[in-house]
Amino acid sequence: MTKKNVVIVETKYFEFAKPGKELVLESGQKLGPITLAYETYGGLNRQKSNAILVLHALSGDAHAAGFHKGDEKPGWWDSMIGPGKAFDTKKYFVICSNVIGGCKGSTGPSSINPKTGTPYALGFPIITISDMVEAQKHLIDHLGIDKLLCVVGGSMGGMQVLQWVSSYPEKVTSAIPIATALKHSSQQIAFDEVGRQAVMADPAWLDGNYYGKGQPERGLAVARMVGHITYMSDQSMEKKFSRKLKDKNYSFSFTTDFEVEGYLKYRGDNFVKRFDANSYLYITKAMDYFDLSGKKLLPSGKKANTRFLVIAFKSDWLYPAYQSQEIVRQLKMRYIDATYCEIKSTYGHDAFLLEVEEETHLIKHFLNREYTEDGYSEYNI
Amino acid sequence: MTKKNVVIVETKYFEFAKPGKELVLESGQKLGPITLAYETYGGLNRQKSNAILVLHALSGDAHAAGFHKGDEKPGWWDSMIGPGKAFDTKKYFVICSNVIGGCKGSTGPSSINPKTGTPYALGFPIITISDMVEAQKHLIDHLGIDKLLCVVGGSMGGMQVLQWVSSYPEKVTSAIPIATALKHSSQQIAFDEVGRQAVMADPAWLDGNYYGKGQPERGLAVARMVGHITYMSDQSMEKKFSRKLKDKNYSFSFTTDFEVEGYLKYRGDNFVKRFDANSYLYITKAMDYFDLSGKKLLPSGKKANTRFLVIAFKSDWLYPAYQSQEIVRQLKMRYIDATYCEIKSTYGHDAFLLEVEEETHLIKHFLNREYTEDGYSEYNI
Repeated sequence: MTKKNVVIVETKYFEFAKPGKELVLESGQKLGPITLAYETYGGLNRQKSNAILVLHALSGDAHAAGFHKGDEKPGWWDSMIGPGKAFDTKKYFVICSNVIGGCKGSTGPSSINPKTGTPYALGFPIITISDMVEAQKHLIDHLGIDKLLCVVGGSMGGMQVLQWVSSYPEKVTSAIPIATALKHSSQQIAFDEVGRQAVMADPAWLDGNYYGKGQPERGLAVARMVGHITYMSDQSMEKKFSRKLKDKNYSFSFTTDFEVEGYLKYRGDNFVKRFDANSYLYITKAMDYFDLSGKKLLPSGKKANTRFLVIAFKSDWLYPAYQSQEIVRQLKMRYIDATYCEIKSTYGHDAFLLEVEEETHLIKHFLNREYTEDGYSEYNI
Repeated sequence: MTKKNVVIVETKYFEFAKPGKELVLESGQKLGPITLAYETYGGLNRQKSNAILVLHALSGDAHAAGFHKGDEKPGWWDSMIGPGKAFDTKKYFVICSNVIGGCKGSTGPSSINPKTGTPYALGFPIITISDMVEAQKHLIDHLGIDKLLCVVGGSMGGMQVLQWVSSYPEKVTSAIPIATALKHSSQQIAFDEVGRQAVMADPAWLDGNYYGKGQPERGLAVARMVGHITYMSDQSMEKKFSRKLKDKNYSFSFTTDFEVEGYLKYRGDNFVKRFDANSYLYITKAMDYFDLSGKKLLPSGKKANTRFLVIAFKSDWLYPAYQSQEIVRQLKMRYIDATYCEIKSTYGHDAFLLEVEEETHLIKHFLNREYTEDGYSEYNI
């Protein structure tokens, strides 16, 4: 990439839920004050009708696109967000915020609890996907946006997409849930629980009170290693690593023999440098609690005119295509306009970050229709 | 089960590789003396032609069938071995031995190193599937058996089956590898490595020197939890647990909410009571090193008249059916008689222990043919 084209972006911070106005969470507990870290790309038009809310997955953050000053790597979905890209910032105003419970600038377990002057740790209340969306709603209100042109996200981002339509159907023109589910299956809960157990089994976790003393690195790394296996497919791992050895022969010891072992260790070790172990616990729990099956998808009395594009990937075994098909089925039962696309990718769950060309094609087309149908084809900043 | 039918069995021990006659391992290291724990069921006929060697999986042991005195539970494959069962002990002499590297009576890392008077721990040499088979060969010789009527096993047991034919084709009349592979894929290695990392991340592991101080329980439990997810299928977990809660409502804490979480913890905690953490490392490493692809399946100059029955299970995603199909393909390329059966089970990898009816049907038929064709239909003890 030539540095000429680099778009420098900055993370902004929005504070709300100040004393007396705390956010009442799904658990009944209150949280406040709350900071949301967020970024925006492109410009909001005069009618404020071109806003797209991008929602991140488990380990994502507000930095979805562009470069932070001095950084070598762009945001996590830069391939999809920018001038001329799927979410064309010449046309759309794109917003991404870090979820509450996170550790990338939004209020989470590593934030200082104003009541104690020390990090919340496990004193942080359990948050749900619905709570994350409530916080985002405050941000959207703050930005003066009455209705979102689109909400979009993969994996846990897709859960937030579904929750947005469930909570505020009148506020969402179109929705793109990618590689996601109406609720976690037993197997998905099981994988999350193994990750949590790995963190909590690490004596350095100290019941969550490790701040200032160093992360439970070994446990969190193991959790991330398990995660990475589930994000790839059998096929993509075979293609990338097969049985390739780091050295010429077996070591006949417990050091790293196979390249895939080295890769997982590298990913695990890297993760602990950038992610808070308690946030990992809170966010996976939010995913496990998420359940919009049955009547919860659209509470009675509510009506959704939202148009859906539901995307799944053939080799994704963590969020198998049948779960996306179930979303479509549930939407259609409620007479909600939904298009289903299953992309023949071999990348597994990671495909939502990697199948840029296919996704761009689908999403551009889908958004264009939305944008022109509503007569918002002219871009006014 | 009525106690009347209970068959009481005892584990026996065979010692070999005494000073000066140590077993030379694949790594080049020597191991000795070696104890093999083994059990036998039924009687060896006069011709010594009715012997079936049963080979166990990762966490199995020599106690495949019958009851140990006072025990409530029978051996791990009791449903398949006994009078009138698939491996009919009225006809066959069934042998099962604990692998070297194990912790159920055979020499492994928890055994006393005669040179130091303390447990081997990581001083135990890395062993391979081929080394396990070499040790079994000594036992078979000791029992005076020149040729095995059948070698059979699932998962790692199936690897030993394949290794037996590779090492001693002339000693094996028929072979039944179940839910196994010619070599571990990248994903299979990855899951094993995560298990090993979970064990080694536990500070109680003490670089393997935990004997007398207590196991690295938390790490080994996490390893086993990951394992259990891979042994079941998405479908079987959904059927067994779905999103069932332990209590009526979400706890909004990090205690056990879902039944599947409780189940995994229970299985993890139980495992650490009965299995040695270092054995877990050694045995998974042996599985990862196993590779009979290409010319290694039948070294040049060797000929196999062994007849194969290769069994796979539709929902087994840890040892997917395509790996069994590859075994069949490789056998047929070598003009070896192989029948392939894919059982439509929903149990995942666990199916090899659970699909008793289907397996019994297939195996009885397969063995009967062998037994009568060779004129050994009369049972002589």
